Amino acid sequence: MPSPVPIRPAGKARPAPGGRVYNFNAGPAMMPLSVMEEAREALVDFAGLGAGIAEISHRGREFLAVVEESFALLRELLGIPERYRLLLAHGGGQLQMSMVPFNLIAYRPARKALYVDSGVFAARAIEIGARYGYVHVPAHSRDSDYDHVPALAPDAIDPEASYLYLTTNNTVMGTRFQTFPASGAVPLVADMTSELLSRPIDVSRFGVIFAGAQKNLAPAGLALVIVREDLLGHALPMTPRILNYEEIAKDSHSLPNTPSTLTVFMMCLMLRWMKAQGGVPEMERRAELRSRLLYEAIDASGGFYRGYARPAHRSTMNVTFTLDDAALLERFLAEADQAGLYALKGHASRGGVRASMYNAMPVEGVELLVDFMRTFQRRHG
Amino acid sequence: MPSPVPIRPAGKARPAPGGRVYNFNAGPAMMPLSVMEEAREALVDFAGLGAGIAEISHRGREFLAVVEESFALLRELLGIPERYRLLLAHGGGQLQMSMVPFNLIAYRPARKALYVDSGVFAARAIEIGARYGYVHVPAHSRDSDYDHVPALAPDAIDPEASYLYLTTNNTVMGTRFQTFPASGAVPLVADMTSELLSRPIDVSRFGVIFAGAQKNLAPAGLALVIVREDLLGHALPMTPRILNYEEIAKDSHSLPNTPSTLTVFMMCLMLRWMKAQGGVPEMERRAELRSRLLYEAIDASGGFYRGYARPAHRSTMNVTFTLDDAALLERFLAEADQAGLYALKGHASRGGVRASMYNAMPVEGVELLVDFMRTFQRRHG
Repeated sequence: MPSPVPIRPAGKARPAPGGRVYNFNAGPAMMPLSVMEEAREALVDFAGLGAGIAEISHRGREFLAVVEESFALLRELLGIPERYRLLLAHGGGQLQMSMVPFNLIAYRPARKALYVDSGVFAARAIEIGARYGYVHVPAHSRDSDYDHVPALAPDAIDPEASYLYLTTNNTVMGTRFQTFPASGAVPLVADMTSELLSRPIDVSRFGVIFAGAQKNLAPAGLALVIVREDLLGHALPMTPRILNYEEIAKDSHSLPNTPSTLTVFMMCLMLRWMKAQGGVPEMERRAELRSRLLYEAIDASGGFYRGYARPAHRSTMNVTFTLDDAALLERFLAEADQAGLYALKGHASRGGVRASMYNAMPVEGVELLVDFMRTFQRRHG
Repeated sequence: MPSPVPIRPAGKARPAPGGRVYNFNAGPAMMPLSVMEEAREALVDFAGLGAGIAEISHRGREFLAVVEESFALLRELLGIPERYRLLLAHGGGQLQMSMVPFNLIAYRPARKALYVDSGVFAARAIEIGARYGYVHVPAHSRDSDYDHVPALAPDAIDPEASYLYLTTNNTVMGTRFQTFPASGAVPLVADMTSELLSRPIDVSRFGVIFAGAQKNLAPAGLALVIVREDLLGHALPMTPRILNYEEIAKDSHSLPNTPSTLTVFMMCLMLRWMKAQGGVPEMERRAELRSRLLYEAIDASGGFYRGYARPAHRSTMNVTFTLDDAALLERFLAEADQAGLYALKGHASRGGVRASMYNAMPVEGVELLVDFMRTFQRRHG
């Protein structure tokens, strides 16, 4: 497996300018060096135009071709059926928490929606959704501080609900839905921000899938929305045009106004890269390998490292653990940083260690982290 | 005056990859080569971190420093008083057309707003604003297809209005407000998307100034909002958190969620460049020189080129004109393109020629365009 990152020996000081660290940031996330190098050239001159990708018209044929290629790659990589529309939206995943109810709460007359409360961002979506309609939470795991994703009883699916909302991977706690609940005739809405394109999914089971770009797709500032065509056309009257799925879909290239053209272009490069690497099955294989290496190291540490998520609910994207001693935790993070293992600090609300390993993270980066953890434990355990 | 673009002889074929054209696109707009070159390096490694600017945390000190520097430069370049807050918003200028009424229509109990209808984007703002309250249009120029900006009678300012909305420069038609109307106690809201930082303004006369980034500020996908502090806190209940000025302002770095970090960084580079070039007075001097050269060429053509805007209302950013013969117009655009004068085609709704000359356009680019126009007229006039 080719590594896009030059490997440095563990324990060495931070790399010189030009060298690259293994970046475990939860998002914005690491991207492959080859993608960055392509983007770099296109900044000054795109397609021989004598103008950079960020400087050309979003209505010109060169940029339209970027959108067309991106959509074709997404359809191929994810197996998206024809009856789904692909939309590019401003503002990332969090704006989708408003856009979903704006566009879908009125899908059924009761204006009721079901939300599974499985983590910090699910809870935020609930708080936001409640401004637009009647929000019910048929399952939650907040009593155990979200250390697992809650099970949903089949009779919890109220058929009058406009949608059932899931956060399929929970970045803060490092949990994920291993399988997705059946929702019958109630459209399933999935925030897949932190795992889209890292595991095969059956798109036809969902009404809406959305993802903020800054994990597996592109730099921050963009969201991808995959929406079943029959769900268009139910927006609340106050919905801003730019936030209205139907209005966005009216333009065949999803350009109701000027998009973040540079970000869309970088998404296209990322999708090309994923396809060349072997597509979603290969992304999944790497994700499972990376996370298994890390969970095994945690579980074999005799309690020196304590995993956060319940084993059956563990995420393959975000691995969370901590050390009992706060001073030792600080030292772990500082020494990891010195070893070129970057941005391992846990979410501000929970602390500890979080290794976010999106599609661009080479397995070698995780091997280096595991070596580092063993060495650190030997010295301090 | 240094030119950021290598000059090629007029009439030569399109440049080879690596060469740069003079890009007259209306937005996304040309940016200085030096800015692109800096951005290019930071894509792979920012601040010696071993990770690129698009890959690092928006909450880390390195990115926060980018926001702080950008805000300091904006305050210095525009003379923004302390009692104004600077906000970074997703989605460009058009989302502001919703965000302004979301945040301000309830500023006074009548929920009434005044809009001057001076062009295509002003008309869109009116259509959007009308979803949220009572919209009055005290002045318009639509009966003459927006060839000027309309005068506003002083008694047209209804003191019960929550705000008076202006589009200060109209990109489609190439007109601008040479001076701004007094609005008394009614907050003046200005869409300055296509001219911010190209002329000195007295910020204290405005309640809100906003600008989509993709003209003078940065690549597309970001809006800058300058808002007087006492106007925060009036948002409608349905306002999404990410679109609520008060919520955005709660974070001292304007980060209610992950922003388009790469775009913000490129804005910082643009602001540094503007300061190094001599600031807003120098940007204005160049804008006046560029547009004067072009308007003089139009006016001296004996009707071969026909300017669109009434002379007293002409924009310094977007110069619009046409040729009477449709076939000749096509030829003009094609030959200009061959000469490295890129993206001169007028807006889809109006046709003709539009030369958009934002801050990064070197005077030499306009001199080349004027030479080209004279040569073209000699051959075809």
